[in-house]
Amino acid sequence: MRRLEQTAAAAPFSLEAWSCLQRGRVEQALSHWVAGDGLAPAGLGEAMRYAVLDGGKRLRPLLVLAARAAIADEVPSPGLDEAALRAACAVELIHAYSLVHDDMPCMDNDVLRRGKPTVHVQFGEAGALLAGDALQALAFELLTPGGPTVPARVQAALCRLLAHAAGHAGMAGGQAIDLASVGRALSEDELRHMHRLKTGALLQASVLMGAACGDAPSRALDALGRYGAAIGLAFQVVDDILDVTADSATLGKTAGKDAAADKPTYVSLLGLEQSREHAWELRQQALAALDDSGLEDTRALAALADAVVHRAS
Amino acid sequence: MRRLEQTAAAAPFSLEAWSCLQRGRVEQALSHWVAGDGLAPAGLGEAMRYAVLDGGKRLRPLLVLAARAAIADEVPSPGLDEAALRAACAVELIHAYSLVHDDMPCMDNDVLRRGKPTVHVQFGEAGALLAGDALQALAFELLTPGGPTVPARVQAALCRLLAHAAGHAGMAGGQAIDLASVGRALSEDELRHMHRLKTGALLQASVLMGAACGDAPSRALDALGRYGAAIGLAFQVVDDILDVTADSATLGKTAGKDAAADKPTYVSLLGLEQSREHAWELRQQALAALDDSGLEDTRALAALADAVVHRAS
Repeated sequence: MRRLEQTAAAAPFSLEAWSCLQRGRVEQALSHWVAGDGLAPAGLGEAMRYAVLDGGKRLRPLLVLAARAAIADEVPSPGLDEAALRAACAVELIHAYSLVHDDMPCMDNDVLRRGKPTVHVQFGEAGALLAGDALQALAFELLTPGGPTVPARVQAALCRLLAHAAGHAGMAGGQAIDLASVGRALSEDELRHMHRLKTGALLQASVLMGAACGDAPSRALDALGRYGAAIGLAFQVVDDILDVTADSATLGKTAGKDAAADKPTYVSLLGLEQSREHAWELRQQALAALDDSGLEDTRALAALADAVVHRAS
Repeated sequence: MRRLEQTAAAAPFSLEAWSCLQRGRVEQALSHWVAGDGLAPAGLGEAMRYAVLDGGKRLRPLLVLAARAAIADEVPSPGLDEAALRAACAVELIHAYSLVHDDMPCMDNDVLRRGKPTVHVQFGEAGALLAGDALQALAFELLTPGGPTVPARVQAALCRLLAHAAGHAGMAGGQAIDLASVGRALSEDELRHMHRLKTGALLQASVLMGAACGDAPSRALDALGRYGAAIGLAFQVVDDILDVTADSATLGKTAGKDAAADKPTYVSLLGLEQSREHAWELRQQALAALDDSGLEDTRALAALADAVVHRAS
């Protein structure tokens, strides 16, 4: 309560200021944790750092930290704040590894990512394969520090959420459907299912991992789950819109590649205008879920829902 | 105590009988947990099962279960027995994923594994990449079941050990050194360092994960760590020996490929006879560590050390 009143009295919430601060924490932590000098041999650490540092919107870490902020008034704790920072970095490592592997020649065969040559272009295919594998392992290492700071039940819950979202019933499963869908006509239900796994699962897990760094009541957890599902899908709808409306320089990756690869997208299925409306509806669903949550300070989560729908890259 | 006397009175310890029983438990559990029908979409589950089931010596799971058996007299508990079975399967999933990725064209480009076509030959490169990624995630999912059966501190400890052994400071790091070493002369120290990471870390972690399913005293943990390090290295020395002395049919994988790839091995460095002596010394070190452990029933661990050195494939 105190925190909310102080902040609210001082200034209206600025997502830009909040994100800048949180991104700074995340960048510093990633830089510290991702295979520091001498920790990883034979160029592996260099490839891991290249894949993770100096780029990316850090949306997933921000979602973790925003969800933690929403429940922090219930359970203030430095140990849980550290857990949330570790979770924020871990989910970004999973995201980064998935990009490294997706860009490889046997998958999307892409040469540009975040405005730089992709990892396999820079470090070779074997180097990219290993860097991705090591980043996934590092995510779970970050979540399970020794010592008493982060409670074991939180460590276990974070690993459970992340492993489920990253694996066959989440991101990897969605990728498999995606691969199998090229050149096939999908129904809206099938497209939604693919995206719920491929992108949505990790975005939703980010929110739930933030919430797991504390003792959120089950009503709040349910609501945050719905919020995460809605913005997870909104993110993908906007991705599909940007793939046809933005250029490669703005995106920092190759634009128009879904259409070129004959991949089913929301735009190809619903058209541009209806896709925009759908993204807006999902934003409304996300905000309604926050209203249902009973949590007091959901300003960062609400602002992130807006940012997901209004992003230009 | 009771358990030891009963078994010892009834019959001398038979590794074959013990392994047969434990392998049966592991096969059944893997079969249940690895992406059952309908759980993983678009052929992903099929590729995961192909990579994991119906093959393999299951040495790592046996090490987990043997270490658990060695400390079980200290802390008998069905929850910890379940934790050990989950750990046994998780470590095998990490091993299986590493084989899938190692066999890919950008790495060792191998077409035969456990007597079958490798995963990328059967399911395509993208399918193999995703199956490996999903198997790694599934390992951590297995280690973190919901509910009260497996204590959270054990879940966290198991994830910590496995993530560290699989990642940049363990298996993935060893792979990176291996890739960078082709055609280079390595000293025995460098070769040992590579193998400690590439193969040894996961074998040692198997032992320590079994020990983490209980409250082993620190003297026992130290000794089991030394045991694990010794058999981890012995395993690789024997692997190098078999690569030049066995044929592909016996190995179930391509023989002679290290020599063909001009990779440094113990045999190329020490010669065949001295490599055999080295394996024997490592066996002695492993048995000496067990004597130091203060644990009562280390028969399975001792027999596994023998099996590692005497294996023919």
